[in-house]
Amino acid sequence: MAARAETIHAFDIAPAIERLKGILGPEGVLTDPAEVTEFRDPFQHASWREFEPGAVLMPSSVEGVQAVLRIANEYKVPVWTSGQGRNNGYGGAAPRVSGSLVLSLRRMNRVLEVDEENATALIEPGVRFFDLYDHLRATGSKLWMSVPDLGWGSVVGNTLDHGLGYNLTGDHVAHQCGMEVVLADGDILRTGMGGMTNGRAWQNYKRGCGPSPDGLFMQSNYGIVTKMGVWLMPPPECYMPGWLTLRNDSDLELLLEKLRPLMLDGTIPNQPMIINAVCAMSAFAGREDWYTGEGPMPESVIEEIARQPGFGRWVMRFALYGDEKVVDRQREIVEAAFGTIPGAEVSFSKYDGRNLPELDNPHERVQAGIPSMALDRMTRWYGGEHGGHIGFSCAAPITGRDGAALRDLVRTELNTAGLDYSGVIIVTKRSMIHVGLVVFDTEDEAQAHNAYAACRSMVRTAATLGYGEYRSHLDFMDLVAEQYDYNDHAQRRFNERIKDALDPNGILSPGKQGIWPSAYRG
Amino acid sequence: MAARAETIHAFDIAPAIERLKGILGPEGVLTDPAEVTEFRDPFQHASWREFEPGAVLMPSSVEGVQAVLRIANEYKVPVWTSGQGRNNGYGGAAPRVSGSLVLSLRRMNRVLEVDEENATALIEPGVRFFDLYDHLRATGSKLWMSVPDLGWGSVVGNTLDHGLGYNLTGDHVAHQCGMEVVLADGDILRTGMGGMTNGRAWQNYKRGCGPSPDGLFMQSNYGIVTKMGVWLMPPPECYMPGWLTLRNDSDLELLLEKLRPLMLDGTIPNQPMIINAVCAMSAFAGREDWYTGEGPMPESVIEEIARQPGFGRWVMRFALYGDEKVVDRQREIVEAAFGTIPGAEVSFSKYDGRNLPELDNPHERVQAGIPSMALDRMTRWYGGEHGGHIGFSCAAPITGRDGAALRDLVRTELNTAGLDYSGVIIVTKRSMIHVGLVVFDTEDEAQAHNAYAACRSMVRTAATLGYGEYRSHLDFMDLVAEQYDYNDHAQRRFNERIKDALDPNGILSPGKQGIWPSAYRG
Repeated sequence: MAARAETIHAFDIAPAIERLKGILGPEGVLTDPAEVTEFRDPFQHASWREFEPGAVLMPSSVEGVQAVLRIANEYKVPVWTSGQGRNNGYGGAAPRVSGSLVLSLRRMNRVLEVDEENATALIEPGVRFFDLYDHLRATGSKLWMSVPDLGWGSVVGNTLDHGLGYNLTGDHVAHQCGMEVVLADGDILRTGMGGMTNGRAWQNYKRGCGPSPDGLFMQSNYGIVTKMGVWLMPPPECYMPGWLTLRNDSDLELLLEKLRPLMLDGTIPNQPMIINAVCAMSAFAGREDWYTGEGPMPESVIEEIARQPGFGRWVMRFALYGDEKVVDRQREIVEAAFGTIPGAEVSFSKYDGRNLPELDNPHERVQAGIPSMALDRMTRWYGGEHGGHIGFSCAAPITGRDGAALRDLVRTELNTAGLDYSGVIIVTKRSMIHVGLVVFDTEDEAQAHNAYAACRSMVRTAATLGYGEYRSHLDFMDLVAEQYDYNDHAQRRFNERIKDALDPNGILSPGKQGIWPSAYRG
Repeated sequence: MAARAETIHAFDIAPAIERLKGILGPEGVLTDPAEVTEFRDPFQHASWREFEPGAVLMPSSVEGVQAVLRIANEYKVPVWTSGQGRNNGYGGAAPRVSGSLVLSLRRMNRVLEVDEENATALIEPGVRFFDLYDHLRATGSKLWMSVPDLGWGSVVGNTLDHGLGYNLTGDHVAHQCGMEVVLADGDILRTGMGGMTNGRAWQNYKRGCGPSPDGLFMQSNYGIVTKMGVWLMPPPECYMPGWLTLRNDSDLELLLEKLRPLMLDGTIPNQPMIINAVCAMSAFAGREDWYTGEGPMPESVIEEIARQPGFGRWVMRFALYGDEKVVDRQREIVEAAFGTIPGAEVSFSKYDGRNLPELDNPHERVQAGIPSMALDRMTRWYGGEHGGHIGFSCAAPITGRDGAALRDLVRTELNTAGLDYSGVIIVTKRSMIHVGLVVFDTEDEAQAHNAYAACRSMVRTAATLGYGEYRSHLDFMDLVAEQYDYNDHAQRRFNERIKDALDPNGILSPGKQGIWPSAYRG
């Protein structure tokens, strides 16, 4: 086996840190181990020593970011960037290459502009979902935003990592409009209509006149996004979150077949999430409340969970938004479509979207774009406060065949590894993401090892079936990239060409998504 | 003034042509002037000698495209690519650099796959809108596609040039999913999930795991797209095209203010086109039917056109699609919103979308995704069969202020040049494109000169107001790129870096969108 790429390129961050202290000030450079450790992979076993931050840099301005890159180029040291670094199932803020300078943009957290008429915002990368929400409410804006299940992450960071939310603007990449990017050499690029000094349509028209590089700066290591446009939505007259429960595990296939036409024609306009029984229960209880035996939870216990009120073998949350009469009609269509599934139950709540009450159910809050942390406990199925998870997440067409294949693959491999199958399927208009929440007790080293091994195995098995990951944990980035093998890994070879052209010293996030600069390729 | 870039780099295509005849065969290499002339800018005055094709190459396969690039690299000759080359308002198939080999992909015209369940297709770049439509109907597919006003163009070519259609999938870039690209060195890249040899979701999930370069291959000269995924739509239960007419020119502003919320919340889900009186009449009559004087048509004649049945100072075509009850309700909402504009009239037709009758009105056909050439006569306002036009097309937010600014700018500059103002505003969910159809008699050299001069002037004036072109004619590509001036033309400098990395010999479409390879930059 070849040497791991990150061991090829030696570097020393100490002189760079000294220089940076003078530029960023003491609050801009964290070297105290107690502070730096907060930027480790939060779910990595305490005895493991991969993906260790060398120090943490926290500039507060674009000029600060440029200064970091100037020094990094001078000393040829790697800089691993994150907005908030809260995508914990994929490694959090931790760098792929141990000893890297971790560049955290948490202090660049200004909402620069909200255009109420056109429902757009321009924000910095440290803005959390909580921050944007608070800003909108504090300034009297009526606009809704989209949030993922946990609100503590960076809006920009989530978008750049192809993250999803759950209302009309929940396809975050599709609702990004315009970027400012600091390139590796410190040059500042504004994409789309931001290419004009006084462009009127930077946050309205996604493209410019010429190639659009925005997609190039997502899930990559080609530049540091310092501003991004976000599309918001006007408040709907009517907000109607819905639930569907399935009695039988095997009816997942039928559900997906009934759901696809409703997604394609826009009857269901958000991103429904189909949650299996274990995963649904993990929002309310720990595993020990249901089962304390070794190995995967028996089918009989899962059935018992599924029989709880409001539960099922699968539960789908989704929502409708808009004119009340239109929404009422959409509800009828949805009920008619799902009514043909034996044992399926559908229910709805209904709210005035322009005058929302306090929503008790965290799922209803998420689909209304209200950030919270209520669903954080889902990762604590094993191990209580020490629970953790890895996301194993594949993209697929919306078909029963594909849903069954991914469910069976992930369940079989996790059960073989002695782990419970906790999974959700996030459905978008044209595709779905099956997320295996590979949950484990981070203090149980054997179980953690099993979880990682199962993920590695699933990446390979999924690829033989034609499924690729849409996002990946640090530990699997090379392995995942390896599966994109068409034409002798043309994607990787192309990505490396762009990398070498834009970042010849290889300072930006080496190894991100399996893209290594030339100095690390040996 | 600096030398024009295209004059810096000398080349000789003769030896390359000899080699290519042996590879592509006689039907793959056109050198007969009578055949080559078909690939000129169709609206350029006959005495002008810019943008002249050197010869035309017509490979029938990916291997043929690779062979062309191999030879072009060997002899360092420029290759200007088009699918059909029918975007006549922007220069047709003609190359930016005279003497270039024109690579026409018209013979690569296979519909490779249609997935009826998931409403997707995989097509080659020579597939015309007519071809895809015929394929769908001939194979019994029920799916609808999107078409622009004229059906003879390439689906891929239109998409790559940021073209628009007029139904639920009318934002063509947003409904592209997966590409195969031949890079300048002949290497083949498949984007997104096509990066896996047997990827299941290539036409379903737009991204892969890593950066997305698709936007980079649009409006650029970085590669040749040889396959592309297209999203289609299921047939709607109800298809309801609508018309709105405005009595007063100044009510355009109010219309845009009423329209924006209906676009943002999806009540109107297609791409409405707002057409001024002269443009609307040009679909039915020539200018001489209304006025034969010199200079711009007087206001009194325009008013007379506007008073014709079905006309107005502005006419908006738009359409609703879906469940009949939902569509009926959306109609009520639309009528209520526009009913507050004095002198506005709204009317609708209603069809069974799953069993469409023959549609007489070409606009109703276009919005149903049925290709035709009926609207071609709009470019023959002046000069009858010798009529031509240049598209001057700016992107803007959907506001009355922006609509009025662009209308006034284009009208004033065209009238000053002695030309009538023919214009449309194409409205998408979040932005609009004001297209000034700069119509002229291609045999009237003075008028053609005036038209070109007016366009050059408008590009500059628009930029001072913050409006950039979304697409540009060959003649203005450098000038348009020049307006994207933020940070010392960071976009152009970035585009050049990518160009040099991907195409070091500078063979692919030099000068496209103002992107020149290093050999031409002097």
